[in-house]
Amino acid sequence: MQVHQHKRIAVVNGGGDCPGLNAVIRAVVKTAILRYGWEVWGSEDSFDGLIKPGKLIPMTLETVRGILPRGGTILGTTNRGNPFRYPERNERGEIVFQDYSERVIQKVKEMNLDAMVLIGGDGTLTIGQRFCERGLPIVGVPKTIDQDLLATETTFGFDTALKTVTESLDMIHTTAESHERVMVIEVMGRNAGWIALEAGIAGGADIILIPEIPFRVEKLVEKIEARRVAGRPFSIVVVSEGATPVGGSQIYREKGIEDPFGKLGGIGAIVAGMLGSRVQLETRVVVLGHLQRGGSPTAFDRLLGTRFGVAAVDLIAKNQFGRMVALDDQKITSVTIAEAIARQRLVNPQGEIVQAARAIGICFGD
Amino acid sequence: MQVHQHKRIAVVNGGGDCPGLNAVIRAVVKTAILRYGWEVWGSEDSFDGLIKPGKLIPMTLETVRGILPRGGTILGTTNRGNPFRYPERNERGEIVFQDYSERVIQKVKEMNLDAMVLIGGDGTLTIGQRFCERGLPIVGVPKTIDQDLLATETTFGFDTALKTVTESLDMIHTTAESHERVMVIEVMGRNAGWIALEAGIAGGADIILIPEIPFRVEKLVEKIEARRVAGRPFSIVVVSEGATPVGGSQIYREKGIEDPFGKLGGIGAIVAGMLGSRVQLETRVVVLGHLQRGGSPTAFDRLLGTRFGVAAVDLIAKNQFGRMVALDDQKITSVTIAEAIARQRLVNPQGEIVQAARAIGICFGD
Amino acid sequence: MQVHQHKRIAVVNGGGDCPGLNAVIRAVVKTAILRYGWEVWGSEDSFDGLIKPGKLIPMTLETVRGILPRGGTILGTTNRGNPFRYPERNERGEIVFQDYSERVIQKVKEMNLDAMVLIGGDGTLTIGQRFCERGLPIVGVPKTIDQDLLATETTFGFDTALKTVTESLDMIHTTAESHERVMVIEVMGRNAGWIALEAGIAGGADIILIPEIPFRVEKLVEKIEARRVAGRPFSIVVVSEGATPVGGSQIYREKGIEDPFGKLGGIGAIVAGMLGSRVQLETRVVVLGHLQRGGSPTAFDRLLGTRFGVAAVDLIAKNQFGRMVALDDQKITSVTIAEAIARQRLVNPQGEIVQAARAIGICFGD
Amino acid sequence: MQVHQHKRIAVVNGGGDCPGLNAVIRAVVKTAILRYGWEVWGSEDSFDGLIKPGKLIPMTLETVRGILPRGGTILGTTNRGNPFRYPERNERGEIVFQDYSERVIQKVKEMNLDAMVLIGGDGTLTIGQRFCERGLPIVGVPKTIDQDLLATETTFGFDTALKTVTESLDMIHTTAESHERVMVIEVMGRNAGWIALEAGIAGGADIILIPEIPFRVEKLVEKIEARRVAGRPFSIVVVSEGATPVGGSQIYREKGIEDPFGKLGGIGAIVAGMLGSRVQLETRVVVLGHLQRGGSPTAFDRLLGTRFGVAAVDLIAKNQFGRMVALDDQKITSVTIAEAIARQRLVNPQGEIVQAARAIGICFGD
Repeated sequence: MQVHQHKRIAVVNGGGDCPGLNAVIRAVVKTAILRYGWEVWGSEDSFDGLIKPGKLIPMTLETVRGILPRGGTILGTTNRGNPFRYPERNERGEIVFQDYSERVIQKVKEMNLDAMVLIGGDGTLTIGQRFCERGLPIVGVPKTIDQDLLATETTFGFDTALKTVTESLDMIHTTAESHERVMVIEVMGRNAGWIALEAGIAGGADIILIPEIPFRVEKLVEKIEARRVAGRPFSIVVVSEGATPVGGSQIYREKGIEDPFGKLGGIGAIVAGMLGSRVQLETRVVVLGHLQRGGSPTAFDRLLGTRFGVAAVDLIAKNQFGRMVALDDQKITSVTIAEAIARQRLVNPQGEIVQAARAIGICFGD
Repeated sequence: MQVHQHKRIAVVNGGGDCPGLNAVIRAVVKTAILRYGWEVWGSEDSFDGLIKPGKLIPMTLETVRGILPRGGTILGTTNRGNPFRYPERNERGEIVFQDYSERVIQKVKEMNLDAMVLIGGDGTLTIGQRFCERGLPIVGVPKTIDQDLLATETTFGFDTALKTVTESLDMIHTTAESHERVMVIEVMGRNAGWIALEAGIAGGADIILIPEIPFRVEKLVEKIEARRVAGRPFSIVVVSEGATPVGGSQIYREKGIEDPFGKLGGIGAIVAGMLGSRVQLETRVVVLGHLQRGGSPTAFDRLLGTRFGVAAVDLIAKNQFGRMVALDDQKITSVTIAEAIARQRLVNPQGEIVQAARAIGICFGD
Repeated sequence: MQVHQHKRIAVVNGGGDCPGLNAVIRAVVKTAILRYGWEVWGSEDSFDGLIKPGKLIPMTLETVRGILPRGGTILGTTNRGNPFRYPERNERGEIVFQDYSERVIQKVKEMNLDAMVLIGGDGTLTIGQRFCERGLPIVGVPKTIDQDLLATETTFGFDTALKTVTESLDMIHTTAESHERVMVIEVMGRNAGWIALEAGIAGGADIILIPEIPFRVEKLVEKIEARRVAGRPFSIVVVSEGATPVGGSQIYREKGIEDPFGKLGGIGAIVAGMLGSRVQLETRVVVLGHLQRGGSPTAFDRLLGTRFGVAAVDLIAKNQFGRMVALDDQKITSVTIAEAIARQRLVNPQGEIVQAARAIGICFGD
Repeated sequence: MQVHQHKRIAVVNGGGDCPGLNAVIRAVVKTAILRYGWEVWGSEDSFDGLIKPGKLIPMTLETVRGILPRGGTILGTTNRGNPFRYPERNERGEIVFQDYSERVIQKVKEMNLDAMVLIGGDGTLTIGQRFCERGLPIVGVPKTIDQDLLATETTFGFDTALKTVTESLDMIHTTAESHERVMVIEVMGRNAGWIALEAGIAGGADIILIPEIPFRVEKLVEKIEARRVAGRPFSIVVVSEGATPVGGSQIYREKGIEDPFGKLGGIGAIVAGMLGSRVQLETRVVVLGHLQRGGSPTAFDRLLGTRFGVAAVDLIAKNQFGRMVALDDQKITSVTIAEAIARQRLVNPQGEIVQAARAIGICFGD
């Protein structure tokens, strides 16, 4: 083995959880120890390990044993632990926000950490970029089940979410077919329609609604009724959580629906409500919610997580800080974190996948 | 092979769909043809095959090939096709209800049907009993994912529903643990808490709410907070759709909540709303809905469905009409349909399973 | 809570591993601590915790967290650790057998253990019975994926094995159908044909070979050829590892096959070899092997394991030693360990399940 | 819709079956009918539809309903139906090979087929190329679970095979850990180690043996013993069916093993035999075999199959014959069939994925 300078590194994961996180953590720990002979520390609950006492723990080969097939993350994670705006209760029980960024920087010095592997989506990586700018030696690993980072072809977690949604669609198909129903399934994705688009095709949806293609409810009614008349008295509608009708929230106001997402639930319920009396079939809604973040990661996500973890440690070995590992044309590469957080990967409404979906008769409501 | 009088029989399935239905249909068809040399007809969409033209179809070995692992039912089913109160639109487009029971009886005569296998839950079997009383030769097969028929130890479909809920709980666990959340999962079961109870234990729930044990929200808050203080800042709450707080709907009125299930969604959303500000953790709801009726049946449900189907045909061979096949102490037996529809199987709040759940620390909110 | 005498108990698991073991261990620990306020120790690698230093570990609520969905056992287990005949290498590297039973008894005294929960199949329970006779306060929990203990209706692990085999048959079906093949699948079960019988029915097998019904290869050829001629040019044969042809090993000798299981592999390979040139289809063998002992336990196995674990601790609280928990007519009960190990649960060749299989056309080779 | 010339096309699938085939067939039929208004025929059992009477069937939207989640292929397939060398029994019952290629060409003319979509691996595509050279208008769709065609980044079927192997490794892990065993799992892949490599990493294998990296058994023994001494008395070895020791078959002869694959089974059994007495642990073999070709396709394989099917029909619309659809940098493209069959995609022993595996401690036996 080549002789490497001894290093002491930390691994931090922020944001929502994501199947494959444990694969990354395991690969970081194993590579640092086995390939480089370094020392690894894990920060529990996002940055808390660098903010609060007792939450930065030593990571060994033993710590990461058996975690590869497990969902979640052994380090815990949270959306709320932004060190630049950390929520705490004051003596009157009110939430106030503190800037603990300096604490993080001090902790890194105090612990003599040579580098930090930061696993997160755009929110966490933006925090990482701010720390980079203040001199912390960080390498990033992209994490989002929504596949919405343009800088990387895909990320771990997305494939597992696809699996969960597709298997759910398989289950719903049997019940939709046996009865005469329109089933509306709301899935994750934020501003990007990837989960809805790909799982919708894979799960045999009839209608797919995504943020990138605003829909008209009349088109949905047309499709559903055409199917009914043709002897298919059921339809499966997959709705991305960020989908909106043409005209957006304006349309709700005209219809006298105020604060629709607050009172009526998500867009799934809205769509079901809109279809309501217009189709001659019962409509039911299924909101998959956090199921999509759970479960054992797929083979692809475990493999990609492992490759990302190894690559992140290799970047540290080469002192390439401020960069994020990425996948490009199936190969591992890296980009600057600054670049990575700048642009979103959205579905191209004229792209080949949408066209393929249209070719087999899927309606996008436009 | 013993010589049997040649018969012509029909198979009818009513009510919601249920994993294992295809196993029953396949076993009825195979047994009638291979063991007895009879002829089998299938009624599409519940009783529609006996009410409308063109919906009574011949069943052959070919018809039932490959259907064993599939959810749903190849015959289609519906909750709305009660022949005694059949909904139809009149010339003004209004729904009116017709009594088509005589049509069914005429169709059975006209087709020279010697017997009918009727697969259904208490609703469908009650219809079956009325036809029995008017002379139709019927044998019943119990079908309910809720396991709420006292006359049979269990039914096919329940085990598959358990599987779906338990696997969903596994997925939700990883996300609840990684974040700091109370996850409320609403499951099926009507008036019976079986799915919530058994999947709740199998899926590692912290709190289980069932119709048989009215709950107090204070007890839930106590349990969740005790866990949080003990370093377990997350809880999994499984709620049966029929669960109610002590005092029932009265409690909603006092709190100024009107028509709670209409506006706010099911009991899952109600419980989440009640917990809301009282616990220091975010609360999220997952409603599994029709996922629980879908999917490939488990080995147990395929086996039980097969055994029920064979047993139903054997009952016909012995001219034992007005009876329903059942499972008792793991053995196939039969009871009168009249008996079967009379009593519900509910969870015994003092029973061994509830006690076992309490022994390992599960809270029922009482 | 009722006041209970404080106790210190140990949990020991022996024999092959079995999905649901962790559910039992978790329930024992939780019940002892939460319901009774006792102390629990776990013996690693079967009895090794009572034989070797450092392998008896304290069990806490923390120890058993998150283990419910996991296959295997957190304590480890082994078939080779019989304390009455413990294999060790002497100075010349040869294996010699030691009687360490007295060490076990001394360790129990020394540690002031009030009782031991022993989880095992007939081998382990026989060892347990010998310790009972020498005064150790033991309660047993039955463990066998083969479902071959007459004293209990079923055991945890069996349902998970059924699931694994049935899902494998589903996979093999698609490939057998697409090609023109006889697929022979060898499954576990020792002297009992339960896994082959029940998974065979659930997985749509055409032929099922079990130890309880000796087969004639001519019957298999007949069935396979009849299917081929009828336009079904493929067959699925499920073979229990203990199945034998009529005449047993005699038949091998006549055919000039010596020591068949040694050289040629298991009965699956034998059956494939026998079919070989006699059918006009290619034959392939799949041996599922240890897959059947692995994987996340099903909802049923987790629930039953939990109920058994709770019941075992309850037996200790009532000082009912020398007994094993069991399931009878879906209820938890107990029998003496002596009784439990005396008799095997075998498939009844004239029983209802075999008859149901025959009714739908499954061939048993007789 | 643009006006297209009316066409009549056929779809043919050859070689072993592969999860995702039905997605391709469904997409071809739907696209041809819905997008172009063409007519589609399906050839049953590879080319048999073009050789034998009654096996070329009309394909409609109805024909392809509900097939998306199913493994296998609704058209049937076979490895043996090469029209240039078609096996048939003569009057003496001997197999003789016929050249039926002219029959195929005549059938295409006679049926007025404008084009053929040919789905197959290198064998089937080589046949396709010969027909192209004789003037048939063919477009190819690559099909191989082994991912061994250089011309396309990946193919449908591979991801499902990965899933099956990875889930099997998860199951085997629990049993290997609980006991003290070396588990050897033999997987598919022909000359390419992709399945072993990627599933091995995803499933947490300790040793991976692939054809591209010849192994020395001493290295395996070293790794297994090092783990045992370090308190990990079990190892998981994933062996690709094409893996060989350094020196290849030579090594068997030296050891006095003749015709090893004939008598002793595949390379899995060979490796287990070689380890046999050299490691102080029991060794067991699992051969996954045809399980790897079965099962419901993953979301990825359904999506890719759909995209390939649509793209193949689009190629026909553009009269681009002699080409095969392919995936390149996640985008659909096409290459000449001649190019496609020329080169194999093999694992690069110095590539990033192998290096990542080494980084986390996986041994390749070299």
